[in-house]
Amino acid sequence: MALLVKKYGGSSLATIDHIKKVAQDIAADHQKGNMVAVILSAMSGETDRLIELSRSVSDMPPSPREQDSIVSTGEQISTALMAITLENLGCPAQSYLGWHIPMITDSSYQKARILEVGKDNLMQTLNEGKVAVIAGFQGINDKGDITTLGRGGSDTTAVAVAAALNADACEIYTDVDGVYTADPNICSRARHLNMVTYEEMLELAGLGAKVLQIRAVELARKYKVPLLVKSSFGGNRYTWIREEESNMMEDAVISGVTLDRNEAKISVINIPDEPGVAHRIINPLAESAINVDMIIQNVSIDGFTDLTFTVPSTDLHQATSLIEKVAHEIGAKEVRTNDSIAKVSVVGTGMKNHPGVAARMFKALADENINIQMISTSEIRISCIIDSKYGELSVRVLHGIFELDNSKNK
Amino acid sequence: MALLVKKYGGSSLATIDHIKKVAQDIAADHQKGNMVAVILSAMSGETDRLIELSRSVSDMPPSPREQDSIVSTGEQISTALMAITLENLGCPAQSYLGWHIPMITDSSYQKARILEVGKDNLMQTLNEGKVAVIAGFQGINDKGDITTLGRGGSDTTAVAVAAALNADACEIYTDVDGVYTADPNICSRARHLNMVTYEEMLELAGLGAKVLQIRAVELARKYKVPLLVKSSFGGNRYTWIREEESNMMEDAVISGVTLDRNEAKISVINIPDEPGVAHRIINPLAESAINVDMIIQNVSIDGFTDLTFTVPSTDLHQATSLIEKVAHEIGAKEVRTNDSIAKVSVVGTGMKNHPGVAARMFKALADENINIQMISTSEIRISCIIDSKYGELSVRVLHGIFELDNSKNK
Repeated sequence: MALLVKKYGGSSLATIDHIKKVAQDIAADHQKGNMVAVILSAMSGETDRLIELSRSVSDMPPSPREQDSIVSTGEQISTALMAITLENLGCPAQSYLGWHIPMITDSSYQKARILEVGKDNLMQTLNEGKVAVIAGFQGINDKGDITTLGRGGSDTTAVAVAAALNADACEIYTDVDGVYTADPNICSRARHLNMVTYEEMLELAGLGAKVLQIRAVELARKYKVPLLVKSSFGGNRYTWIREEESNMMEDAVISGVTLDRNEAKISVINIPDEPGVAHRIINPLAESAINVDMIIQNVSIDGFTDLTFTVPSTDLHQATSLIEKVAHEIGAKEVRTNDSIAKVSVVGTGMKNHPGVAARMFKALADENINIQMISTSEIRISCIIDSKYGELSVRVLHGIFELDNSKNK
Repeated sequence: MALLVKKYGGSSLATIDHIKKVAQDIAADHQKGNMVAVILSAMSGETDRLIELSRSVSDMPPSPREQDSIVSTGEQISTALMAITLENLGCPAQSYLGWHIPMITDSSYQKARILEVGKDNLMQTLNEGKVAVIAGFQGINDKGDITTLGRGGSDTTAVAVAAALNADACEIYTDVDGVYTADPNICSRARHLNMVTYEEMLELAGLGAKVLQIRAVELARKYKVPLLVKSSFGGNRYTWIREEESNMMEDAVISGVTLDRNEAKISVINIPDEPGVAHRIINPLAESAINVDMIIQNVSIDGFTDLTFTVPSTDLHQATSLIEKVAHEIGAKEVRTNDSIAKVSVVGTGMKNHPGVAARMFKALADENINIQMISTSEIRISCIIDSKYGELSVRVLHGIFELDNSKNK
């Protein structure tokens, strides 16, 4: 007997028939004597419909508080529907909204962060032999308002609940059957992986692998929650995401190549090279909760320098407004933006012990005449910003160079 | 400057354009310096859609708790949409859900009763110069679950909020322009009334006038909240519902004739005429929150009697099951049901001082060969249960007999 947390995304809940099928899977786990907590997204398309609706009445962007109240109804409906479906199968169940749990968040509507998960109500329901069916994506802030966690936030809800309940595993059911060495749509020779470390997945998720939200993986690593990614549409494939084991992946240098098209580049040209300038430029973005990813500052020439960084494309418009204001204040020459960029990355814990990975990567891109605009590295990742049009090509080239389609490698 | 509570039903919120139009009315009242609290229903059709959805996943009736969670999203969406729309007009606004206020109810899901209305949060919002946009129809019980108040519950929400805030008036905007002497669809000579007392409206609402939920009128009478019924589709007509004034309606004997087709009749035949039997029969209905309206017990013959009563048609099936069980226990001969009945009533505070109203009513029905199956009376009302097929005819006959289409009467 185990305590399982199972999360189903919108595509697994697309229709009433989908909901009934998922309910059977849940009831089967419950029937085996497991304690089961389920986290659900809204039925597919519903979140977009509700966002569209909230925008339809106003010329201005809608109040974030009010939009969150509207959007959160998607999960409110899917969870109660699932509880009804489970009861119909003879499986006792009870739905939970964010404020029922409570799932306490900060006040950043539309991208709230979880501060605390109430454990007592959920454990009582599980101890009563019921399945707890929990609305993903939503929480409550200290004003008592509904907040939402941002796109893909239900993954984060699932991991937070699994951590709070000290679950044996957190199973993420989605429309893919796990993690691959590259996006199979881009690279036909991409290979399925049965296991990756949290660290690798963090780099993979953050770089556009689309399987899991990066926050969910971060949280799983912090609380050592074993994650299992599986397809809710059948098949036997899966990927475990967990701590590195000593006997694992000794020979693997690189575990995957990823491509991210969701960033845009902002350059602030000719700024005074003096203490505090970088802070003054970046801080307004932080205050508006805009994620800055890569940041590069050129060497200073004649007391002036350039600062270039990337932000999510969706935040480019807002970020540019903020930056243009600051640029004017500090006397910068101009602000340039570019959203036709892509970030291609190679990821792998093995590269810690294998020097020369960066050199091989840069050579492979150069051999294809692909210019590298920015570079950033971590212990287990090397990323290059390139012209968007070379995105797919670069993935295939790097997948070949690092012999990821050669199964002996893993 | 006044404190106004304004309630809009689903037909006033049918589309985005309806919502924008209502927002202009609200903003205009706010602009004049009034404090404004708004109570909204779900957009028209939405509640039915959500009930249908909650039934679509299950062969059994869905869990009432879960269904309430689903159905309450209708108002959650309409209120947040209205707040966004008002802000877009430059009118500051904030939405409120049942649990935000809090609107504390008992635990009878789907027909919860309001126990207490939190006043502090709402007053703070009003004092900050914002319009409070409140989800009608919903509350929270002592388990922290969402409850709904039953059909038309938003009227009750409006009056409860008006009472809690000690509002100057509670304006109910609907798709009719007030109260008539009879249903104009049945009786073409029906006359509009500018004013009725709470007591008259209670009888009229409870008897199928469809303008206001009876619970809302009861609550308004208890807390002396002046109610104004108006059409949200324009026109200058309205009806005030308030306390009787000494100089009002001195000559009016009857203010209206109503027809109610939403009841069904249950007879328990040949029951022992001993203490406690009526209680044993009726009590299971009370415990299941089924409203019993008229109750008639025959004179006893040889120690046996019959008990006949009416319940809402929608509860007939459940009521019959309960009653058949009890009938068996107490040794009754049989249980008969009939849902092709109608209740026709004449209502008016004037009849207190005018004897002979009942006699005139019975004679008018007899003259048309309409058989009276049951009779009940109050101080200001006389009701007869008749065969359903004579419903419209009886309204027209009584409307004529009591000279309601003669404006000299009022």
